[in-house]
Amino acid sequence: MAPTQFPRHLKPIEPQGQELLQQERANASFDIKHLTEKIYGKPYLDTKKRILSVLANDPILSDKSHRYYTGRNIRFKKAMAAAKRMAELIKEHQWTPEDVNIADLLFDEAGPFRLHRSMFIPTIEGQATEEQKRLFLEPAQRYEIIGCYAQTELGHGSNVRGLETTATYDNNSQSFIFHSPTLTASKWWIGGLGKTATHAVVMARLITNGKDHGPHPFIVQLRDLVSHEPLPGITVGDIGPKFGFGTVDNGFLMFDQYRVPHVALLARFSQVDKATGEYIKPPNDKLSYGTMVFVRANIVMESRYVLARAATVAVRYSAIRSQGSDAANPKKIAGTDGVTKVVETPVLDYMMQQYRLFPILAQAYACHFTGEAMHRMYYENQERMANGDFSYLADLHASSSGLKSLTTTMAVAAIEECRRACGGHGYLLSSGLGQFYQDYLPKATWEGDNYLLTQQTTRYLLKTFRSVRAGKKYDRNFSSQYMVDYLAQPKAQCPVKEASDFTNPETILTIFKYRVAFMVEQAVHGLDVEKRTWNDMLVEIYRISRAHCQLIMVSNFFQGVFSADNQNKVMGVALGDVALLYALSTLEQEVADVLTSGYVTPAQALLLKQQVIATLKKVRPNAVGLVDAFDFPDYLMNSALGESQGKVYERLTEMAEREPLNHTSVVDGYEDYYRPLIHSGKQNWELDSNGVAHLRGYLDKAGLPAKL
Amino acid sequence: MAPTQFPRHLKPIEPQGQELLQQERANASFDIKHLTEKIYGKPYLDTKKRILSVLANDPILSDKSHRYYTGRNIRFKKAMAAAKRMAELIKEHQWTPEDVNIADLLFDEAGPFRLHRSMFIPTIEGQATEEQKRLFLEPAQRYEIIGCYAQTELGHGSNVRGLETTATYDNNSQSFIFHSPTLTASKWWIGGLGKTATHAVVMARLITNGKDHGPHPFIVQLRDLVSHEPLPGITVGDIGPKFGFGTVDNGFLMFDQYRVPHVALLARFSQVDKATGEYIKPPNDKLSYGTMVFVRANIVMESRYVLARAATVAVRYSAIRSQGSDAANPKKIAGTDGVTKVVETPVLDYMMQQYRLFPILAQAYACHFTGEAMHRMYYENQERMANGDFSYLADLHASSSGLKSLTTTMAVAAIEECRRACGGHGYLLSSGLGQFYQDYLPKATWEGDNYLLTQQTTRYLLKTFRSVRAGKKYDRNFSSQYMVDYLAQPKAQCPVKEASDFTNPETILTIFKYRVAFMVEQAVHGLDVEKRTWNDMLVEIYRISRAHCQLIMVSNFFQGVFSADNQNKVMGVALGDVALLYALSTLEQEVADVLTSGYVTPAQALLLKQQVIATLKKVRPNAVGLVDAFDFPDYLMNSALGESQGKVYERLTEMAEREPLNHTSVVDGYEDYYRPLIHSGKQNWELDSNGVAHLRGYLDKAGLPAKL
Repeated sequence: MAPTQFPRHLKPIEPQGQELLQQERANASFDIKHLTEKIYGKPYLDTKKRILSVLANDPILSDKSHRYYTGRNIRFKKAMAAAKRMAELIKEHQWTPEDVNIADLLFDEAGPFRLHRSMFIPTIEGQATEEQKRLFLEPAQRYEIIGCYAQTELGHGSNVRGLETTATYDNNSQSFIFHSPTLTASKWWIGGLGKTATHAVVMARLITNGKDHGPHPFIVQLRDLVSHEPLPGITVGDIGPKFGFGTVDNGFLMFDQYRVPHVALLARFSQVDKATGEYIKPPNDKLSYGTMVFVRANIVMESRYVLARAATVAVRYSAIRSQGSDAANPKKIAGTDGVTKVVETPVLDYMMQQYRLFPILAQAYACHFTGEAMHRMYYENQERMANGDFSYLADLHASSSGLKSLTTTMAVAAIEECRRACGGHGYLLSSGLGQFYQDYLPKATWEGDNYLLTQQTTRYLLKTFRSVRAGKKYDRNFSSQYMVDYLAQPKAQCPVKEASDFTNPETILTIFKYRVAFMVEQAVHGLDVEKRTWNDMLVEIYRISRAHCQLIMVSNFFQGVFSADNQNKVMGVALGDVALLYALSTLEQEVADVLTSGYVTPAQALLLKQQVIATLKKVRPNAVGLVDAFDFPDYLMNSALGESQGKVYERLTEMAEREPLNHTSVVDGYEDYYRPLIHSGKQNWELDSNGVAHLRGYLDKAGLPAKL
Repeated sequence: MAPTQFPRHLKPIEPQGQELLQQERANASFDIKHLTEKIYGKPYLDTKKRILSVLANDPILSDKSHRYYTGRNIRFKKAMAAAKRMAELIKEHQWTPEDVNIADLLFDEAGPFRLHRSMFIPTIEGQATEEQKRLFLEPAQRYEIIGCYAQTELGHGSNVRGLETTATYDNNSQSFIFHSPTLTASKWWIGGLGKTATHAVVMARLITNGKDHGPHPFIVQLRDLVSHEPLPGITVGDIGPKFGFGTVDNGFLMFDQYRVPHVALLARFSQVDKATGEYIKPPNDKLSYGTMVFVRANIVMESRYVLARAATVAVRYSAIRSQGSDAANPKKIAGTDGVTKVVETPVLDYMMQQYRLFPILAQAYACHFTGEAMHRMYYENQERMANGDFSYLADLHASSSGLKSLTTTMAVAAIEECRRACGGHGYLLSSGLGQFYQDYLPKATWEGDNYLLTQQTTRYLLKTFRSVRAGKKYDRNFSSQYMVDYLAQPKAQCPVKEASDFTNPETILTIFKYRVAFMVEQAVHGLDVEKRTWNDMLVEIYRISRAHCQLIMVSNFFQGVFSADNQNKVMGVALGDVALLYALSTLEQEVADVLTSGYVTPAQALLLKQQVIATLKKVRPNAVGLVDAFDFPDYLMNSALGESQGKVYERLTEMAEREPLNHTSVVDGYEDYYRPLIHSGKQNWELDSNGVAHLRGYLDKAGLPAKL
């Protein structure tokens, strides 16, 4: 009944993964470390190193060994322990919010204090009065109260105006009465609310003197600080098992005529007069749109990590995993006997694999350059707004909505595509891609549903187009400029004559610009001339946002790598191929749009396909180097397939040994469920000389099945 | 510390889900029960009813309440219990293999005996001699031995010729010596092998008298029948946690010079002379390709279920879930006070939702008609082959490879698309879509990787095209016919003039045919004239198979619904719209191909988009009826969102109450991990008159936050 172990003396078949990865790294045309520094900058890398060393040496946070093996009960308890430990380390090392972000990234597991840090504290900082800050902020920063952010309800998600929870001001008692009138009014999905939070920011319809002022934020205490029991009038709990995120106690919350003091209404902007209940309106708030741009820039930057991490696993594994043989280009190695022999071909040499994986790698770099551009534009816009210039804001806000949608949709698809590209073994949790997918997935729904968001983007583009065409006033920016160009050149034609013309960045950018402008023109025609409803146009509206954001990403990528100071360097060349791959693979995928517009001809579309294949081949020798440059430590990846040294099969077998079912050679439950069936055939057994039972007739005169 | 409960007196906000579903059902233009009978036939429905009643009343198999809530340890043990119980019911009710399939479908959880039934027993039936059948078959049918099918290895999947495990015949002892020479030679992924199987069919390289004859099947005993302990020379265990399928013990298996008697080689086709070790070759075996067609037809039929089940959840939920308001078409209900009021719009009324969901519904029906056609053709082909006519076989086999790839790829995508279309709540396991996705996913990889398989399809099409064009001999069938037509009409043009022309089935079919033929011609040109390698063409090869199989599906669907006896009936009209939707939404998605071929013009592509939207609107009133017709019982679906009576929010809250974290109001771990942090702020507390602690300053003179 000893635990199961693989034979320790056996190695995988030749060639070894380690050697294959070394060859790949040697083949890269650029200095991988140099590219890593270009992506992150030296200070970030130093900080990451410092924090990684703290985590990797911490008795609690270094241990991820249970993650793939246990149920939610154990995982949640360990997440509580980790949350406490992380809070201690933050204090001990005086980590800044940026440091904490890096620590969270490396630890790679959302925990019960997640929303406390990312929403509860920032909401107090942003929306509380000075008095309220004194009351709540410092205890929150010391984790003496733990908060969450309770907005969505069981029946109400993206449409905030539909929220049902009410907070009715009672002038007599000078307090708010919170109430949930229906089942669908229950707060729902709130991270950290279920079992953890003592307090919540609650969005509720503020009612004063009989008038409904719509949703407003309150700080509400939920649990007794002594006992952690929910207070009377509060029903609170966990919403139950989810596809991922088992380590967060997403919760529900219902109020039954629950009284809360006047100080609870976060009153920096809207206020209620304590004595009269008179409502004081907030000033108009354009500034908060600026903040949303910053949040979305961070989401784009996170998409970059997600894409790159998924690609790291799949590209490294594909450089090692070998199968079949490419007849035109067989893989050969020198055997230990000095004789060269043909071995199976690494699947990364198959064109289909390159076609599936390299565009994902390119998307990661594309997100990097666009995330950087968004950060730059955010600061520029903040400066302008401080000077009363709001001319950047609308465009920036509209584009950032669409970019959040586009990049998170890409990232979600990429994890799953990479997982499948790992073949059967991608389905093992030890691939490192399964739980990663499950945990990242909600990003496509929260912070704005990826479909709904695009309506904001397209609404802005349609408005701009109408203004430009009518010669009315419009903001001069990237978006309006391509519309001006489009309207100036009706019936333009793509100038491509041969496949290699698709390496000209200007040519490519012009195609992407023409595409969006044409689609916008069509949609304006549909709405304004054909009088189709907004609802009937939703599919096109989604596509327009997508097209606009793809254009932005191509533009930022090209600017990042084809500018004068990059163009002639070796690394610039390598990244140039990646930029072209991003643009061309995106264009191929969306080629129906440009064919439909008539700007690109069928013959040109065929040339495009050829150029995509040619670009994949150029990227091939740099593939492992390009993923390595993202510098994900094995501690983060927790992946047998993507392990940095290429010991794929060794890790897979190690991780199988850790499976709890392997702790005994005969499984718990055997006596009850298998033995009765198997032993009912006892009369047909015969025993060998070792007392082992076989079916009668299986043994023959030669003796036994047995170890020689 | 009582378990958490929602208030029992509260209902969801108006209108209630039940009423909404009733309205939807009343709106259907056809008799739902009638369509159900048309899909399944009366006998199948009777059998299903009979078996459902057995399962739903069984003390063990009726209970699915643990599925979303527990870790693998508990789930596997319960799966063992269920496996035993299912084996008992099969004996007790003398269920046929078809009955067992229905029971498996309804129970909806793969278990440890799965491969025993689906692979171990059929392999014995197909490949054993009469002597071997006597020895193994009956004990297997009585579950006195439990088997699995051990082919793939840690380092070797689809390429069977790469297997490393050897079975070397030892003439002296008249036995085979099984051996795993490397770590990558370990059998891996084998369902039921880890902790359950006593025996395995093992594929190993047969070596006799120093000669390697390649992989052959053996029956090998792995465990002592008395103790269930692995036999000496065998290392066996579970491969560890997976993305889904936690209820199956996929296993690994290594041999260390393990001796097995002569009778182990399944010898119906290949044999080894017991005395001399002489190898006797198998006869040429074209017949087994026929069986593969049957297996794949069943996979297509299963894809139908998967698509329909995912659509059932998402369509029903979308008819209930309401959000925002469509300004052009606001949803109104009569309030209890008799006054009509505007309520939020069910998301199914939004065009984007229809665009995401209805094509999936259409794909389900498309798979139904193609699965039926494949079954018909299988029988027709078996008859022909029995008469020595092999002219159908190549086409049928090639198409069935591509259809397996296409339909499982569609089905996998559909579950996830439906899950996301359910918004946030799709992420709850109680949606019924999360585990469903995880468990179905491997279908895209096993029984032929979905990319690899398409090479078979396209290879056949290219060969046929070359023969047709060169005027050589070719099989007359559907595939060769559309190539003949294509070559007869160079430069043909799609005749569509207005959007409604896209309702003509012949017009649509001709577009699909032209598309494949053009792509095949291009590929043949690339390979034969431009001398591009097969590897360089893999992307096009994949696309050609896909295009060919989409054509087959459109053709079968049209034949099924536009034939004379359906055309004029109400139900035929409803299904006709669905058939058009399948064809047009597929065409829109792939429109780049037909634009590139020049057969369809940009203006026609714009008309196609319009017609897709028009067709979605036609399907809208029938949507709930069309999913209902698939008749999935709630027992099967185990879904709060897709529940047949529309009590979405009631079920969601019930299922949340069952979450183990809600069994106590203060979470286990609180003392260790939260209390120390929270209580460190004790000096800032003040107690209210009930002894509840708050932050000092939160309470004001008005008194307490407390229940009124």
